[in-house]
Amino acid sequence: MSLPIREVRVTPIAFPDPPLLNVAGVHQPWALRTVVEVDAGDGLVGLGETYGDAPHLDLVRRAATALTGLDVWDLNGLRARVAAALGVVDEPDRHGLTGPSSAEKTLARVVSPFESGCLDVAGQATGRPVSDLLGGRVRDRVPFSAYLFYKWAAHPGAEPDEWGEALDPDGVVAQARRMIDRYGFTSIKLKGGVFAPDAEVEAIKALRAAFPDHPLRLDPNCGWTPATAIRVAKATEGLLEYLEDPTPGIDGMAEVAAATGMPLATNMCVIGFADIAEAFTKRAVGVVLSDHHYWGGLRASAALAEICRTFGVGVSMHSNSHLGVSLAAMVQLAAATPNLGYALDTHTPWQSGVDVVAEPLRFHEGAVTVPDTPGLGVTLDPDALERMHRDYLDCGIRERDDTGYMRGFVPDFTRRTAAW
Amino acid sequence: MSLPIREVRVTPIAFPDPPLLNVAGVHQPWALRTVVEVDAGDGLVGLGETYGDAPHLDLVRRAATALTGLDVWDLNGLRARVAAALGVVDEPDRHGLTGPSSAEKTLARVVSPFESGCLDVAGQATGRPVSDLLGGRVRDRVPFSAYLFYKWAAHPGAEPDEWGEALDPDGVVAQARRMIDRYGFTSIKLKGGVFAPDAEVEAIKALRAAFPDHPLRLDPNCGWTPATAIRVAKATEGLLEYLEDPTPGIDGMAEVAAATGMPLATNMCVIGFADIAEAFTKRAVGVVLSDHHYWGGLRASAALAEICRTFGVGVSMHSNSHLGVSLAAMVQLAAATPNLGYALDTHTPWQSGVDVVAEPLRFHEGAVTVPDTPGLGVTLDPDALERMHRDYLDCGIRERDDTGYMRGFVPDFTRRTAAW
Repeated sequence: MSLPIREVRVTPIAFPDPPLLNVAGVHQPWALRTVVEVDAGDGLVGLGETYGDAPHLDLVRRAATALTGLDVWDLNGLRARVAAALGVVDEPDRHGLTGPSSAEKTLARVVSPFESGCLDVAGQATGRPVSDLLGGRVRDRVPFSAYLFYKWAAHPGAEPDEWGEALDPDGVVAQARRMIDRYGFTSIKLKGGVFAPDAEVEAIKALRAAFPDHPLRLDPNCGWTPATAIRVAKATEGLLEYLEDPTPGIDGMAEVAAATGMPLATNMCVIGFADIAEAFTKRAVGVVLSDHHYWGGLRASAALAEICRTFGVGVSMHSNSHLGVSLAAMVQLAAATPNLGYALDTHTPWQSGVDVVAEPLRFHEGAVTVPDTPGLGVTLDPDALERMHRDYLDCGIRERDDTGYMRGFVPDFTRRTAAW
Repeated sequence: MSLPIREVRVTPIAFPDPPLLNVAGVHQPWALRTVVEVDAGDGLVGLGETYGDAPHLDLVRRAATALTGLDVWDLNGLRARVAAALGVVDEPDRHGLTGPSSAEKTLARVVSPFESGCLDVAGQATGRPVSDLLGGRVRDRVPFSAYLFYKWAAHPGAEPDEWGEALDPDGVVAQARRMIDRYGFTSIKLKGGVFAPDAEVEAIKALRAAFPDHPLRLDPNCGWTPATAIRVAKATEGLLEYLEDPTPGIDGMAEVAAATGMPLATNMCVIGFADIAEAFTKRAVGVVLSDHHYWGGLRASAALAEICRTFGVGVSMHSNSHLGVSLAAMVQLAAATPNLGYALDTHTPWQSGVDVVAEPLRFHEGAVTVPDTPGLGVTLDPDALERMHRDYLDCGIRERDDTGYMRGFVPDFTRRTAAW
């Protein structure tokens, strides 16, 4: 029963994004994604979702042309074909929110949406959810965290969004209250790196007071020096379930880890298999945030989880602004990952119900029920895809640039990496 | 499309084994295995093969009763059910040819044949070879090594076997010649730990002279002290592709590795995931010999390979006395493991064509062509299964005991672990 790919369709899309603040600046009014459709004929269409930045989109398009005829089960062959189509390309991200780039990491990012599409087709063809193809569901419900951001009330010149301003502890608590009331999340993450560390710790303390039982995380995106990170880590021991990327680099993280009892999590210093040996040997991190979009797919992320289990390192899951295809893939992966010990991150609440899938997976009491349906468990809404592609064409943004956008309002703004 | 297990059949079998010598003694006249049939109904029967020793067989039987109704895709559930059925059991091997035991390793050994059977059923049901379910074939032919043993001409009191005596370099070379003429192997492994190291190095040198282009390996099964291992490793640098388990324990191996340029391989000090962090951190080994029978199955072995790749450690594959179900599983795993960098070990030539499968996979020019057929690619010969089960009942052996058997002829024999 061969399942060769007949065609791969690659569609860049855009969707409205609120003015969320981070160490690099502020989210632009439109976020970009790319939807990949792996079409194996007979109505078997598998989905993948990835970044929409132009250099990455170019690579995805180049890879897509090389996949006709590939069997959807041949995921090793997928990687080989994509590698051959790309050659050795090292495409750094320019928004400054991930760590150093490499050719291997670039390849992993390009492979990922096709792997998701292939697994989706294989699942549909066999009548199995993708979680079964990854070893079988170990949980029926996948918990997510309330992902809080400092934010402006509105993009400058635009109407206020539904979430309102959050620039101090009261604003953060109000945001958390609204998000938890709506989705039932039972843990909380605050994106930091926006204000001085002490101000962000005050916000964490306000969250603790308002939500005494919710595990809390703080992620300043490497905004602090090791010395600051050590000071803050000591001040928040027992308050946070983990502190995420307080400072840049494996050596910096290792210094903080050695000086404190705080579990350190990362999606900025361990972002590819080549980072693992050094980071684990130096005991730089206690939790790795998995993300199939840049680890090379769902199977690669499952392998990462096995590596973490073997070395006694925890596993959580990272999120960028994303839509329902990514959410479904994250849920399938999480369902089949025994040692995923933390609620996953998601930007879904920030997308105001806009989606490219027909019936997005829903949060209930802070978790998504793992679909029983074959494949990823979601299908595209073709009208939404067309509309969101037009939005992409019209929005004028071709690459995420939180810093450049911020500079339009704060001309001397610079990224705050290790700034405090 | 649910595929629940209806019944699991567990059948211990025995087959004739030549008097092969090793550090623990000499192979008994009969080798034991257990065949597992995972029956999902509608003619879907998946196969697994594992050890036949009585304590292990008891655990396999206990686990088998817990699997009715389990979906064959639910391999995480398989592990959980087996773990629940066994409780915490630490069943050491008593033949002294593997390293320290643990409950985790015991569980992994029991899970393995059922996982093989489940994957076989899943492959048959979807029309795919098991290699596809493991990520897709990266090679069409899987190379094996000529696995040489010092041996007696015959079991005492029995007729000589077809292989004749091999107790010196000439005998070893003659054995290699016969095996390579018959199967075309393009690399060679010599089981050592039988004679003093210098005598075994002489055999390696004779092999090098007779087979100038065949990569060579020597495996004394931890027969040497670290000091001896260092001396031999230095003397054989450039002569061996790797030296396998020269000395016991991670610290001993690390000492040898640090003192020489010889790649050290192991299937005795890294035999479970719990061994990896220490061994890799101490740089004790350069090559891990994978073995799905004790690593917990094909998917666990694939995860091991990913871990090795991540840490720059090579991957080869280990073999005990085995039959055609194991051979097929090894081939499927090897076919889907990109970084398997060495020819696999196999005892198949020593089984004189006796097999429990109807049409065993064959060696051609030293390699097995990966089957295109669904599942593992082999089926049981029911007559052979019945005959070999009768042989099991009649042979009187219930547990492998190379040392005890040797003592029947050499009363003061002791295992030679670190004896030289």
